[in-house]
Amino acid sequence: MATNVHTFIRETQDVTAKDLLDTLAPVQIPNGNFNEKITPKIRSKYRHVAALHSKVQPSCLSHETTDAPSFLGFRNLMVLTIIVMNLRLVVENAQKYGLLITVKMNLRTSDIYTALILYALTPCHLFVAYIIERVAMENAKGVVGRRKKVDPNQSEPETEKDKKDFYYTWWWIAVAHTANASLALLITSYVVYYHIHNPGLGTISELHAIVVWLKTCSYAFTNRDLRHAMLHPGGPESALPEIYSNCPYPRNITLPNLCYFWWAPTLVYQPYYPRTENIRWTFLFKRIGECMALSVFMWLVCAQYAVPVLRNSLDGMASLDFSSIAERLMKLSTISLIVWLAGFFATFQSFLNALAEIMRFGDRVFYEDWWNSTNLKMYWSTWNKPVYHFMRRHIYSPLVGRGWSPQAASAWVFVFSGFLHELAVGVPSHNILGVAFLGMVLQLPLIQCTEPLAKKDGTGKVIGNCIFWINFVFVGQPLAAMIYFFAWQAKYGDLNQPSGK
Amino acid sequence: MATNVHTFIRETQDVTAKDLLDTLAPVQIPNGNFNEKITPKIRSKYRHVAALHSKVQPSCLSHETTDAPSFLGFRNLMVLTIIVMNLRLVVENAQKYGLLITVKMNLRTSDIYTALILYALTPCHLFVAYIIERVAMENAKGVVGRRKKVDPNQSEPETEKDKKDFYYTWWWIAVAHTANASLALLITSYVVYYHIHNPGLGTISELHAIVVWLKTCSYAFTNRDLRHAMLHPGGPESALPEIYSNCPYPRNITLPNLCYFWWAPTLVYQPYYPRTENIRWTFLFKRIGECMALSVFMWLVCAQYAVPVLRNSLDGMASLDFSSIAERLMKLSTISLIVWLAGFFATFQSFLNALAEIMRFGDRVFYEDWWNSTNLKMYWSTWNKPVYHFMRRHIYSPLVGRGWSPQAASAWVFVFSGFLHELAVGVPSHNILGVAFLGMVLQLPLIQCTEPLAKKDGTGKVIGNCIFWINFVFVGQPLAAMIYFFAWQAKYGDLNQPSGK
Repeated sequence: MATNVHTFIRETQDVTAKDLLDTLAPVQIPNGNFNEKITPKIRSKYRHVAALHSKVQPSCLSHETTDAPSFLGFRNLMVLTIIVMNLRLVVENAQKYGLLITVKMNLRTSDIYTALILYALTPCHLFVAYIIERVAMENAKGVVGRRKKVDPNQSEPETEKDKKDFYYTWWWIAVAHTANASLALLITSYVVYYHIHNPGLGTISELHAIVVWLKTCSYAFTNRDLRHAMLHPGGPESALPEIYSNCPYPRNITLPNLCYFWWAPTLVYQPYYPRTENIRWTFLFKRIGECMALSVFMWLVCAQYAVPVLRNSLDGMASLDFSSIAERLMKLSTISLIVWLAGFFATFQSFLNALAEIMRFGDRVFYEDWWNSTNLKMYWSTWNKPVYHFMRRHIYSPLVGRGWSPQAASAWVFVFSGFLHELAVGVPSHNILGVAFLGMVLQLPLIQCTEPLAKKDGTGKVIGNCIFWINFVFVGQPLAAMIYFFAWQAKYGDLNQPSGK
Repeated sequence: MATNVHTFIRETQDVTAKDLLDTLAPVQIPNGNFNEKITPKIRSKYRHVAALHSKVQPSCLSHETTDAPSFLGFRNLMVLTIIVMNLRLVVENAQKYGLLITVKMNLRTSDIYTALILYALTPCHLFVAYIIERVAMENAKGVVGRRKKVDPNQSEPETEKDKKDFYYTWWWIAVAHTANASLALLITSYVVYYHIHNPGLGTISELHAIVVWLKTCSYAFTNRDLRHAMLHPGGPESALPEIYSNCPYPRNITLPNLCYFWWAPTLVYQPYYPRTENIRWTFLFKRIGECMALSVFMWLVCAQYAVPVLRNSLDGMASLDFSSIAERLMKLSTISLIVWLAGFFATFQSFLNALAEIMRFGDRVFYEDWWNSTNLKMYWSTWNKPVYHFMRRHIYSPLVGRGWSPQAASAWVFVFSGFLHELAVGVPSHNILGVAFLGMVLQLPLIQCTEPLAKKDGTGKVIGNCIFWINFVFVGQPLAAMIYFFAWQAKYGDLNQPSGK
């Protein structure tokens, strides 16, 4: 022991400060006070006396700290926690149910044939709309021709007679378009409700009809305005967007132009769209790959995880046991969130981008960063841009133009949207319950409540964002899914057994 | 209908652009292209022609976007998801087990008396250390006095005889200190292992003894160096930290000074600590309130959620069913994480700050932002600063001073720490399994593996942080808890029934 103490004191002196500092580098020197009062070359020979507590300073989580610490580590922890919690549910699910996924499809052949026929027939209404527009265009051309004969340099403003003429022409065009568009929707809804048992196939058919219906409406409305602008050229208030000069009316009333609109990933008709230079095939195949992978993923998640939860919710729903319903709702919410996010990405990022790539459609803003929405209005105007564009151009803006208040116009947009949602959900599930409709209409008071939050800073915005998520992910989706599932079971019994027919 | 169309066209012209822009303001104007080519005062009278698609632009989640969108909303979603997932487990737990919490304590009276006696006797060892130091101090003073008599202006360096003298004195001081400190630890460990059945009470007693033991060691080591510095004043290499000039040796060998160290929230002895001006009573009561609230919270969580999970893990543990063990481990991990975080905050933020406030102890850096650790070394040197300070000043630094490599010194620190962990866990649970010891020693290879990650940027750091969390929260804690619980059950049967004695 004697030598030990000796060596200890001697060796301490032999080692230079630089050596020590080098070896110590990997370990943080606490607060830089470790070597206080000692120049770099000379280090104290005493190892047990360092003044580790040398100044008054607060803990980093106390309010007195001047700069709050970063909490980035907790973000990583949250991601890991969610992964682990869900992994546990996966193991639990496997222990309880084993493998629920079967490749066997419970599709009736008649369902498939009916859906295929609908798929082929629905776009015909677009072509009927084209024929109507063609006739209207020939008629308008005639008006212009007659006018030029009477007075080749006519440039006087629109007369009362002109307005009356335009109105009468528009009246029969409007009747023809309304009949054509309504038929598209009515026929499909009837067929889906009465003849397609499978709700998945029904939803696809119904959504297809809604898209065609909206496209037809946009085509008719836009061409009406373009025709009016041609017939009554005027001052800057009747100017058209510059981009349309690439294809002015009536040169846009052609079959290729309509076919482009038919397949373009948009619901608003424009005679001319910004286009990309060429098709990037790698980009396209990546998007298609994503789309397929995500579809398989959603199918697996639904079959293995959502169906058991929904099944187990039936008893609670039947007996209105609220704690059991709440428990099922919360379990379903994570699953429906995952499915919804995957579905959103598959549709709005992968599918629409793939379609746009094939069509060389330039404007890919199919969505904006809706996940940061600080109020519900922001969410509804960013998550689904194609529908938002339609609602804005063909419903909200004209209503405001007619003198409606923005609130009333918004309200009407949500009522209309609720009607479309009920069509898309209620008809394929053979249960027009009005839940989807109500879900949309009830957004109006919620928007009123959350609107002030968007104007606030910091916490207000975070609260707004949380209200949006709770409303949307934790209450809206899973509750609606449970109600329609319950209604389905009440009507048909087991989901996988086609009813008696 | 005639008037409708009329009004539509007329009113559109009557409304000025400003009015419309005002009313539209709450709704985003998409991409600013809505009013393209139109000066603010004049707005197109056509509502159905706006060129919503007017330029080529990518989707915001595509790789081509120049500025990636913020994902702050998803952070909020994660927080909500974790809350909802756990809320669901709370409901499920309530449905399965009802209320498990009872106010009835399963404490034997003899346990309480034994713990109280230990609590009173353990600090006595600190006072014994004080007496030893007092004697050593008188002896050193005598040496200085004799020297002054011989040569009043002596300032020549330490001679071989001086070294020998100092060593012989230190030898008997060291023996006395070792005997005293070891007794503190041995007596407590013996009593806890054989006479305190309740593991909670045992842990508190054992931790108290470890703290007193570490304080005694620090007191002895520090005073040894201070004494040497007084006996052999020398060049800059024997300089002491400036802060110590407030209370130079031997003026620090007093009972009040020792009592301050006894209660100060630190394990390293300094003759003088930075002090705050006064006690902020509101601060103090807030910290005490936090401490109590968190203790109740932890107790509730353990009793209601951790115990059933541990109980249900017994079968899987006994039959070594790995999928069942993994499922229990993952379920327990969230609970142990919550308890651990609450315990960390209660101890290091609330309790130590409260204690520091009473003692007017200035340096409150009891922890740093360990949650951002990018490797395990960083975690171990930031989460528990009092212990880290002790290890660094009294083990790591002297070993490096003796010529050990930093790796070897670190390794020894972890081995020593493993020994303390095993004492703190194995003794009170009456099962010295070596799991806690191994858990600490196995940190060494893990540190080796994760060290390169800290030097990397971005992803490397995130991966390092995730490895830290997985190692710590998801594997370390719950696995150790399950093993010790299993061993306890194997030895004593039910946790709440004191065994036969």
